[in-house]
Amino acid sequence: MQNTFPDLIAPSDAELERLDAYWRACNYLAAGMIYLRDNPLLREPLRPEHVKERLLGHWGSSPGLAFMYVHLNRLIVKYDLNAIFLAGPGHGAPGVLAPVYLEGTYSELYSDRSQDEAGLRRFFRSFSFPGGIGSHCTPETPGSIHEGGELGYSLSHAFGAAFDNPDLLVAVAVGDGEAETGPLATAWHGNKFLHPVRDGAVLPLLHLNGYKINNPTVLARISREELTALLTGYGWMPHFVEGEEPMAMHRAMAVALERCVLQIRAIKEQARAGGAVARPRWPMLVLCSPKGWTGPKQVDGHRVEGSWRAHQVPLTGVRENPARLAQLEAWLRSYRPEALFDEQGRLRPELEALAPRGERRMSANPHANGGRLRRVLRLPNLREHALTVPRPGGVRAETTRPLGTFLREVLRANPDNFRVFGPDETTSNRLDAIYEAAKKMWLELRPEDADGGELAPDGRVMEVLSEHTLEGWLEGYLLTGRHGFLSTYEAFAHVIDSMFNQHAKWLEIAAGLPWRAPVSSLNLLITSTVWRQDHNGFTHQDPGFLDVAVTKSPQVVRIYLPPDANCLLAVTHHCLKTTNRINVIVADKQSHLQYLDLDAAVRHCAQGIGIWEWASSDAGTEPDVVMAACGDVATQEALAATALLREHFPDLRVRFVNVVDLFTLTPHTEHPHGLSDRDFDSLFTQDKPIIFNFHGYPWLIHRLAYRRRNHPNLHVRGYKEKGSINTPLELAMLNETDRFSLVIDAIDRVPRLNVIGAHVKQRMRDLQFLHRQYALEHGVDAPEIADWHWPG
Amino acid sequence: MQNTFPDLIAPSDAELERLDAYWRACNYLAAGMIYLRDNPLLREPLRPEHVKERLLGHWGSSPGLAFMYVHLNRLIVKYDLNAIFLAGPGHGAPGVLAPVYLEGTYSELYSDRSQDEAGLRRFFRSFSFPGGIGSHCTPETPGSIHEGGELGYSLSHAFGAAFDNPDLLVAVAVGDGEAETGPLATAWHGNKFLHPVRDGAVLPLLHLNGYKINNPTVLARISREELTALLTGYGWMPHFVEGEEPMAMHRAMAVALERCVLQIRAIKEQARAGGAVARPRWPMLVLCSPKGWTGPKQVDGHRVEGSWRAHQVPLTGVRENPARLAQLEAWLRSYRPEALFDEQGRLRPELEALAPRGERRMSANPHANGGRLRRVLRLPNLREHALTVPRPGGVRAETTRPLGTFLREVLRANPDNFRVFGPDETTSNRLDAIYEAAKKMWLELRPEDADGGELAPDGRVMEVLSEHTLEGWLEGYLLTGRHGFLSTYEAFAHVIDSMFNQHAKWLEIAAGLPWRAPVSSLNLLITSTVWRQDHNGFTHQDPGFLDVAVTKSPQVVRIYLPPDANCLLAVTHHCLKTTNRINVIVADKQSHLQYLDLDAAVRHCAQGIGIWEWASSDAGTEPDVVMAACGDVATQEALAATALLREHFPDLRVRFVNVVDLFTLTPHTEHPHGLSDRDFDSLFTQDKPIIFNFHGYPWLIHRLAYRRRNHPNLHVRGYKEKGSINTPLELAMLNETDRFSLVIDAIDRVPRLNVIGAHVKQRMRDLQFLHRQYALEHGVDAPEIADWHWPG
Repeated sequence: MQNTFPDLIAPSDAELERLDAYWRACNYLAAGMIYLRDNPLLREPLRPEHVKERLLGHWGSSPGLAFMYVHLNRLIVKYDLNAIFLAGPGHGAPGVLAPVYLEGTYSELYSDRSQDEAGLRRFFRSFSFPGGIGSHCTPETPGSIHEGGELGYSLSHAFGAAFDNPDLLVAVAVGDGEAETGPLATAWHGNKFLHPVRDGAVLPLLHLNGYKINNPTVLARISREELTALLTGYGWMPHFVEGEEPMAMHRAMAVALERCVLQIRAIKEQARAGGAVARPRWPMLVLCSPKGWTGPKQVDGHRVEGSWRAHQVPLTGVRENPARLAQLEAWLRSYRPEALFDEQGRLRPELEALAPRGERRMSANPHANGGRLRRVLRLPNLREHALTVPRPGGVRAETTRPLGTFLREVLRANPDNFRVFGPDETTSNRLDAIYEAAKKMWLELRPEDADGGELAPDGRVMEVLSEHTLEGWLEGYLLTGRHGFLSTYEAFAHVIDSMFNQHAKWLEIAAGLPWRAPVSSLNLLITSTVWRQDHNGFTHQDPGFLDVAVTKSPQVVRIYLPPDANCLLAVTHHCLKTTNRINVIVADKQSHLQYLDLDAAVRHCAQGIGIWEWASSDAGTEPDVVMAACGDVATQEALAATALLREHFPDLRVRFVNVVDLFTLTPHTEHPHGLSDRDFDSLFTQDKPIIFNFHGYPWLIHRLAYRRRNHPNLHVRGYKEKGSINTPLELAMLNETDRFSLVIDAIDRVPRLNVIGAHVKQRMRDLQFLHRQYALEHGVDAPEIADWHWPG
Repeated sequence: MQNTFPDLIAPSDAELERLDAYWRACNYLAAGMIYLRDNPLLREPLRPEHVKERLLGHWGSSPGLAFMYVHLNRLIVKYDLNAIFLAGPGHGAPGVLAPVYLEGTYSELYSDRSQDEAGLRRFFRSFSFPGGIGSHCTPETPGSIHEGGELGYSLSHAFGAAFDNPDLLVAVAVGDGEAETGPLATAWHGNKFLHPVRDGAVLPLLHLNGYKINNPTVLARISREELTALLTGYGWMPHFVEGEEPMAMHRAMAVALERCVLQIRAIKEQARAGGAVARPRWPMLVLCSPKGWTGPKQVDGHRVEGSWRAHQVPLTGVRENPARLAQLEAWLRSYRPEALFDEQGRLRPELEALAPRGERRMSANPHANGGRLRRVLRLPNLREHALTVPRPGGVRAETTRPLGTFLREVLRANPDNFRVFGPDETTSNRLDAIYEAAKKMWLELRPEDADGGELAPDGRVMEVLSEHTLEGWLEGYLLTGRHGFLSTYEAFAHVIDSMFNQHAKWLEIAAGLPWRAPVSSLNLLITSTVWRQDHNGFTHQDPGFLDVAVTKSPQVVRIYLPPDANCLLAVTHHCLKTTNRINVIVADKQSHLQYLDLDAAVRHCAQGIGIWEWASSDAGTEPDVVMAACGDVATQEALAATALLREHFPDLRVRFVNVVDLFTLTPHTEHPHGLSDRDFDSLFTQDKPIIFNFHGYPWLIHRLAYRRRNHPNLHVRGYKEKGSINTPLELAMLNETDRFSLVIDAIDRVPRLNVIGAHVKQRMRDLQFLHRQYALEHGVDAPEIADWHWPG
């Protein structure tokens, strides 16, 4: 198959010369961005004051990225390809920004950086300069959906972009440094989840640049045989382009890249022709070129081109050292700018003609500004999925199950722009109703899969045991204008902490760019939570993802802890309509008490926080104590404590507050969902004790609410990192979030109970002891705990 | 090379029969653990009450793990191997616990679980039962250094264990589910970093079990050709053992595993014979066996053995359903327990004889209880590395450089049990002096590496662009009794959040086990911090790793933010002596003001927090305002603000407090390093305003200090997620952590300055404006900012 399209011939020398000229223009710009603050076209001899005071940027991978870009342009024009470009080594932004500027998109969006000498000067000056152009492929970069600041996610982003975009070619430069990361190393397997008819194509361009900041790269140092085996083992057909002499490289690249494009076409034509869907062996390209290609070969006797020394700024001290200045000038002039730009400083027309036009430019392709293509999600009627809850706390149900049927209908109503993602736990998370609408995507089936495997080549539920891959796929899918939903195990949400951070940062910046249309929010359901890990134990108990989430921009992050199934429905329904956010939803999958019917749930979730009158005994007056809860299990235990308090102290005025939207707790000056102090005080009083039972680490509540007037009386319980293979009640008791501990807390904090409550406290301790004994004997909680209902 | 040792013959049928009997005993125990609370040897017919009320545990991978274990035992005995076993799918703990019990170690450490019927009953009952044996290979599991609760790290742990243990064989079962994770996918490349003479061997046993919880696995479904190419491409020589008929499988496994062991021996002998060191092609084994092997083939017409249905409990509802009970009994009796155990309920002597003896048992090998082998680290004299600081704030230096020479001497003094780890940034982090003692470990060199590559096959600095791999290596290295130091980029420390969590949990539990000797702490230097990302921008600005770190056990976690080079030395010197902790040290690599000479630094760091008299003007009286800082840049700006305050308000009494040990801020009831309230009050006063400039997200300080008496007056500045490619001062101004903002904060909070300070506030705002303009013009901060020194 390596010899497919054996008759492919290289473009003419004349065409290759033009390609090379375009590439030289890119390289000139990339170097100019790093060095020049003036004299951008070298129309006068280079003087120290033309050079920036501080030299920043990454030269090393820039020429290689521009090389890929220019050759992709040739084929976009030749075959009218619909293509976008992701730069894994996003720190080589100069190599991307250069062609983006040359094809005009940059000037269209940033009019001061026009296509003339003055604009070019501003373009150069503002690169990696305060208030200017970032040194990675930031959201401000036209055509970028992948910043490449943190390495490892380019390939999974590329797959996400390709899903459900049958005509899209997603070219993705994978750096050989990035390729050492875990997320990238497993992302190669994405080809098992790409449908040859329904989805687009991903064309990885592995850049064997040879070096990282200070080290060789692993993939560049193993033998070509091993590398070929590795990429073949990952399921790809690699084509190698290797060398450093530009014209020979242009010739080889033109043929190899065209062969990739034609193979992709052939694969898709064959697949469209029908027959059983099988996984094709997709082509990919390996570009082996020297790091810092075309840059200074040596500096002070040290090799630079082809070495780690070319990683950032290959020539330093230029303003101070005349010899270095001369070397810089010679390097810049080696690209012959006078032959590339016209009098006005614009790329010469015969070169401009090489770039694609309009939206075929990768920098202007609407898929890379996905909000422009986004269609509003069609949402089913919530009512059809609501759980019947005749009275609060009267029934038990698996909280996530109704969400499963709801998502099933979302899948049905949006058959080409909505997908569900999860590691391996959609069924375990009780969302398996969705398989009635869409199976798990799996290309090659075996007969035994018919027995409940829920697998299908046209499946739309994406499951692979890599949270990194799933998060990357979903991000790529959303950034290209679609919608999605990811559910994952609470403790292991930390696996994607860093991806969450990076996506939140992307969204915050992107939302501030007028030309970027809003994209759908990333909806993340965190389930299999800390409080129900009775067989997995301590390693699976970690509610700390929320502690990471709260650090990011309040414009982007929302956190919801619905207490029951209808609230989970209401919250999800809302989240699926939002844009430019990350919505974190925490809800356990197991059987829990249900409290609110749908109407009440919708009202409660819209408020985000509220008094549950039916659980309160303050009857609109000032309570003696506020019992508050946030999270499903936390709410159950707090309710049980409230019931115990009312049983033992019938005249005690208890107010029960439930929090769904975590950010209501923080001042509204800090977060758009924050309550005003007045509203907060009206719920939590100004001076009464608050017993707050929280799903997560208790300190998080203090972090959010420390400025509130009644904070001195806020007593928070939550997970305190105590646990093992415990029954639910045992685990709660270890962390003092159980009903009995909460009753004791209340007695300790309500002055008039301090003395008269002593015997009740003792009773609570006795009950804790008895229940611990029961658990140790039976391995389960006593029925009165496991089946507890809200009384009456 | 596949045909090395072609004459290898399988053991006799008699020996294989004994092996099979041992394996049947393991499988019987694994199933018994999941199901039985009584009648452990089936000496009477199985009745419902013999079965646990709640069935928990993972059967699916257990028989395969036991199969590996038993065959490894054969070769340990035959060749007197020094071997340990890591179970990647640690949730298949029954398959490990069973042979550990059978070889006696379990009973030696937990005397109530003796090797007789009563002990076996307790062993069964306590599995996955409250207060009992965890369902993963937890720290309580003899021989385990890898819990396998969170998947992905087995292989990097294995490499870490093998480093500097030339005679150790680290057998590691890699699950095919786990193999889909990113960290595992890149961990295969560890073979490029394993020295064939100096290090031990890693023998991966990839378990193609076929299924995860509900899905097929990727590696089990690709063709054998692709899988072979993949593993070959990773640099391994795979040997396949495939089938399900036990005796045929025993025969194949015995030969294949012995071939692996002999190939490893041959590799090591050849390497020891001298000559240039090259990377060998290490053998590995692929075991393709049915999931839930030997368990129920079908349940209710659904395939169970060889299917995802075998993942956890293959037969449920056993107590209620007589047919199921009968099926369970038939299954358990299929192992013929009466032939395996003697009258007392102990494994028959002819089977016991198959296991290794004493410390050759993998469950009793001291490498898996590494503290037993740990030698105290030899530490050089700090004084020789101290920076001369004639007066506070009088000099500037790169804070991490002296640490580099210190670590160089640690490497020299401990040439076989200390390593340094880092992604690619040891030089960038100014630690490059360490290369004078030890190069970066790289097996195959090229001529150009001689020019500053700092690479050598016997290098002890481990660099690869995967934080997961590095963290995994270091954990494996520490858990087997050695010492290490990892430095990483602050923003990307989040990549290993989840590994940090899991290691912290391991240490907390392990520290409570009397038979586990303490291991060296994991020392993590976080550098390239948020405040100096003037060219990398927003994606590289994230101090939130600390927000994750604080959630874990106060017995385990320590966080230090040394303000200068000598404090960094003092803190590191201390950390390297500690055990069973994770020490997080935050210090930027760039040039910073230096404040304390070594003696002062050692005293200050021992206290963890203190008043800097030389920067204070309260002269032992009650101050008007407390200016506090934690972190290097935060300290510099707070000092500059203090200087400005003293300049503008000469009679203002300012107290300057510096915090090195973050946990001093929290009550001593919460953390062993916490200050008492009395000490806290004596530093921070009971009622004076505190302006606290923090390195990280400001809310973290409130989370730690919210219980303090003077918390209402605590005003914290820190990183507020505002940034781009900014000069240092610009970035600080955006987040209001700059000197001018802090002066304004103080004026606003000291009542007597509210009015008289108005003009100073205006002056500060003017200075901010002017400095912003300067940065926009020059791309750098004005010299009076960049070169600011503490006055006088």
